[in-house]
Amino acid sequence: MPHIQLPEDLQGIRGPMAFRPETAKPLNELVEVLLHAPNSLSPGERELIATYVSYLNDCYFCQTVHGAIAAAHLNDDEQLVKRVKADFQHADISDKLKALLVIASKVQKDGKLVTSEDVEAARIHGATDIEIHDTVLIAAAFCMYNRYVDGLATWQPHDEDLYRQRAKKTAREGYVTMSKEYIPQPVSQGA
Amino acid sequence: MPHIQLPEDLQGIRGPMAFRPETAKPLNELVEVLLHAPNSLSPGERELIATYVSYLNDCYFCQTVHGAIAAAHLNDDEQLVKRVKADFQHADISDKLKALLVIASKVQKDGKLVTSEDVEAARIHGATDIEIHDTVLIAAAFCMYNRYVDGLATWQPHDEDLYRQRAKKTAREGYVTMSKEYIPQPVSQGA
Repeated sequence: MPHIQLPEDLQGIRGPMAFRPETAKPLNELVEVLLHAPNSLSPGERELIATYVSYLNDCYFCQTVHGAIAAAHLNDDEQLVKRVKADFQHADISDKLKALLVIASKVQKDGKLVTSEDVEAARIHGATDIEIHDTVLIAAAFCMYNRYVDGLATWQPHDEDLYRQRAKKTAREGYVTMSKEYIPQPVSQGA
Repeated sequence: MPHIQLPEDLQGIRGPMAFRPETAKPLNELVEVLLHAPNSLSPGERELIATYVSYLNDCYFCQTVHGAIAAAHLNDDEQLVKRVKADFQHADISDKLKALLVIASKVQKDGKLVTSEDVEAARIHGATDIEIHDTVLIAAAFCMYNRYVDGLATWQPHDEDLYRQRAKKTAREGYVTMSKEYIPQPVSQGA
């Protein structure tokens, strides 16, 4: 049971987002820029970084939602998502993404663990400054989202089908659009 | 030296915020709601939670900036900020804030460590659902800001006076207003 009284029937982060629309707004805008907006890293690559960090933080809701959205972006290749979580160095992803996942996994523990050698390795495989920046911030942001979801003991049903159903729509429409379904909208001044 | 090419002379988070205004916008709006907007927890109390979590994450920039802003809100009592970091259970703060700091310190490690007993202890001392929610999200958010600042190896000069100077202005004007000083503003459509 959640630690505070949250709207019922809303899984994971959706409960506290509906409970506190004032913080939900920047939280959704941040994830929209990081994972869905146009970027030289594809949405599938960015969702894999988010999924991997959420897996390291052992957050069931986030790794399942973002794993499903990653798969939706990657030709429904759920096996690839599983291989990245289990052993990304031997998964069928680019060397650049592997180098970025090394950086992300260090940020997950402590940002100070990232070395100039880690960054140089990413650059050698073609990573730009924006891509390195976004990798660090995606990893850091999921250290927030994971703790927010778990720290309030939100409802996280263990049925992957529930997550797959919405994932395709989120992959297509993005986070801000999807959030309008369950977050109370501010009353218009003119209403 | 920062891991990527950041604007010079901007300390800590200001460098990557000026580098990437698209993510700076929701990052500033989030901290504005959490620490500066009207709330039944005072700005000083909320800044103490942010400072304590940043201290646990060993982020020099964030614990120094937010410690200075906390002091600015708390009659310039820098000793109180130091006592909270060293041993909050014996600092001169309310029992409610002590109970919320217990929750925050668990979120800093892993949200799943927060127990219903921790939450009940905060309620007994008068904490509301919104206050518990905001404590969890402040702690989670500073696990992000700290990793963002350190993961990019931002410039963090160790001169507390530099931080004190801006702290009073931030305490008064808030984060969104202050950020306009150093984040490039989008060009107006009509310009």
